[in-house]
Amino acid sequence: MNKSQWIPIIVLRVIAMASTFVATLLMLTSHDSAKVLGMTFQAKYNNSPTLKYFVIVCIITTVYSLATLFIPPKKSWRPVLVLDVIVTSFLISSFSAAVGVGQLGKQGNSHAGWLPICGQVPKFCHHVSASLIAGFVAVIFYFLLLLFSLNNVLNLVAFKA
Amino acid sequence: MNKSQWIPIIVLRVIAMASTFVATLLMLTSHDSAKVLGMTFQAKYNNSPTLKYFVIVCIITTVYSLATLFIPPKKSWRPVLVLDVIVTSFLISSFSAAVGVGQLGKQGNSHAGWLPICGQVPKFCHHVSASLIAGFVAVIFYFLLLLFSLNNVLNLVAFKA
Repeated sequence: MNKSQWIPIIVLRVIAMASTFVATLLMLTSHDSAKVLGMTFQAKYNNSPTLKYFVIVCIITTVYSLATLFIPPKKSWRPVLVLDVIVTSFLISSFSAAVGVGQLGKQGNSHAGWLPICGQVPKFCHHVSASLIAGFVAVIFYFLLLLFSLNNVLNLVAFKA
Repeated sequence: MNKSQWIPIIVLRVIAMASTFVATLLMLTSHDSAKVLGMTFQAKYNNSPTLKYFVIVCIITTVYSLATLFIPPKKSWRPVLVLDVIVTSFLISSFSAAVGVGQLGKQGNSHAGWLPICGQVPKFCHHVSASLIAGFVAVIFYFLLLLFSLNNVLNLVAFKA
């Protein structure tokens, strides 16, 4: 890979890394409490296995993105491409699951008798929403990174053919 | 691509297609009703936007998988590879979101005051669980398909280099 192919990849990776880092921070700092019928209840991200999964994947992705910035591009772009596919898949998976549960927190589901909780714990909901927006940015940039890397590889095949 | 590269891709694609087809059928036929405090309530997949998203993606993936079986492999494997990345991403996304909501249906979330519903509507839950298992098989096989296609492309680069 030459410089014109490598620099956009670094830019995309840095933006994705910053997004997953921000998403992690926002989710880790999300807590709020509410009094319902005289009882205080705490809303925290680690009350939901799905939000915990999102945080774990965001942390791993941030560390992975940082590590790949120090890997020499010429030698190891093949394993990095395969690892990118795996990391992007987990990022999409954890983000989608968190959005699914976040949507329930915001709107509830009357058929299942699940009431929305955002009215009681608005601070928690704002943090989670902001974290999911950062997560969405990370998903988009990792997806673009993957398509760009794939395009480079396909061009290489076309060029060599 | 030669025959030894193409046949495993067709096999993986047919298994993935069968899985998304089964997942769609199981989700579409999932319904149950329960009487709670004298009121009858219906449990259907289309009461949840997340499960609806899963069904829509499964239908699109089934049709796409079927269509790709009729595309001549030699000419169009490049756009198919990019489309595979997109389809796999949506499949992972919808499956993960559905699992996130399914887990809530099974175990509830005491912190949010969401009770599990599987005790009341077991038939519905069995169908959704079976559909998600079929969805998981589809995710695994589409993921393998992607890694296999990518491996073929990378070998092509190595071979031509």
